[in-house]
Amino acid sequence: MTTFADVTAVTAMAPAEFKADISPRWTIVGHPNGGYLLAMIGRAVTELSAHPHVLAASAHFLRSPEPGPARIEVEALRAGRSTSQLRGRLLVDEKPCVEATFTLGTLAPNSGPAWQGGLPDPAMTDPAAAIRLPPVTPGGQPAAMMAEADVRLDPDSYQGFAGTPSGRGEIRGWLALPDGVAFDPISLLYAVDAFPPATFDIATTGWVPTLELTAYVRALPAPGPLRVVSKARLIDSPWVDQACDVWDSTGRLVVQATQLAGVRLP
Amino acid sequence: MTTFADVTAVTAMAPAEFKADISPRWTIVGHPNGGYLLAMIGRAVTELSAHPHVLAASAHFLRSPEPGPARIEVEALRAGRSTSQLRGRLLVDEKPCVEATFTLGTLAPNSGPAWQGGLPDPAMTDPAAAIRLPPVTPGGQPAAMMAEADVRLDPDSYQGFAGTPSGRGEIRGWLALPDGVAFDPISLLYAVDAFPPATFDIATTGWVPTLELTAYVRALPAPGPLRVVSKARLIDSPWVDQACDVWDSTGRLVVQATQLAGVRLP
Repeated sequence: MTTFADVTAVTAMAPAEFKADISPRWTIVGHPNGGYLLAMIGRAVTELSAHPHVLAASAHFLRSPEPGPARIEVEALRAGRSTSQLRGRLLVDEKPCVEATFTLGTLAPNSGPAWQGGLPDPAMTDPAAAIRLPPVTPGGQPAAMMAEADVRLDPDSYQGFAGTPSGRGEIRGWLALPDGVAFDPISLLYAVDAFPPATFDIATTGWVPTLELTAYVRALPAPGPLRVVSKARLIDSPWVDQACDVWDSTGRLVVQATQLAGVRLP
Repeated sequence: MTTFADVTAVTAMAPAEFKADISPRWTIVGHPNGGYLLAMIGRAVTELSAHPHVLAASAHFLRSPEPGPARIEVEALRAGRSTSQLRGRLLVDEKPCVEATFTLGTLAPNSGPAWQGGLPDPAMTDPAAAIRLPPVTPGGQPAAMMAEADVRLDPDSYQGFAGTPSGRGEIRGWLALPDGVAFDPISLLYAVDAFPPATFDIATTGWVPTLELTAYVRALPAPGPLRVVSKARLIDSPWVDQACDVWDSTGRLVVQATQLAGVRLP
């Protein structure tokens, strides 16, 4: 068994430097998943932080690295009473691949949200009706990550993914880690980038490379699968922004994200 | 006349270092506006970039500086064919105050968005009916920035701002720079943080300090005032996320942002 903690493990080499190993199994068409790389950097910065939980992470993706050995440099920027900020950089072959900045703090248990009025309706369908994605893209290329993460799409979203887009630009479904291991603030950074591009529900295209991804972790997740809603907002060629909202098994919103990505419509 | 370009001016001191001057006039209750500081850093990184336009900017706010002299350090991370990435840090008294990462590229004129399906309805009302914010907060404290930027709220949003919140958590209105100077990708970074917190339409509170702000510049803006819609999404104490979408005078979406901020409801 190889857990998500195993494939995102980091080992200190110096006071602010870690080594890591990018797994070939957490890739789509050979590209390591961006959320997976962000989780790896998040693990490194958390080790050097006075606060335990990532609250906000923003990453710019410079190059898509090959799987294999990586180095993570961390710079602590500030350690305050309630929050700390740190910067992390993932390098492969000494080339920077991901530059990410983090604000960490403490997610204390509380009685739930004080107000919500701007979230999509998670519209919980039966997870048993959802369809698990195979480790192959609609275009027939390898999607090794889907043999690791358990990504299940609602039946209508699956139709969009599989080549009959609804035009709504929205993909909904469920996410679990290998062996059903519970999520934590590190693996939630992966959760917001685990789904196929929401643009697949508009048009089937090639790779939709992420330029920037920002995630806000809002609460400690309860054990169990996550409910994910990913939605395209605007395609102004050649870029699209997508919003992703994620709820835990109790129906609480636990992480949300936006990303800007490249897309070439047919 | 002091233009926005004047108050965000940066002067090269070394190959990757600039000096700047934080204006006391672009403050709310003495705090320099976060979008104003981000625009200043954006100007510095653009000077060192092979590409002319900020596409994505993500900033973490470490400390709220006093107005006065500041230093901006820039690190070029990558210069590619279609995009470049740079990192900028604003320091006051040698303490880092804002850490921001940028992806730059070229916003080419095109025929408009290829698809939009996830944006709020900008619901353009008559700008002549909008009410200009005075340079004072609802709590009676100084809001010097409102004597510089021309922020006009739709009448119903003004009611929320002025102490009769609708509970919708949404603030809509119009924005212009001093002397009506046209916006550009640098000043658009200010535009996404120019409005009062959308949470004022839920409850009147004190300062809502931004932890993180991410902006995506989507198109070159036409001259004229901008239409701004800022919406709270979820308050899970003590943090709130807000989304901001901004259209130019032709009705084209030109910049959008999310931010995570601290809020203490009464």
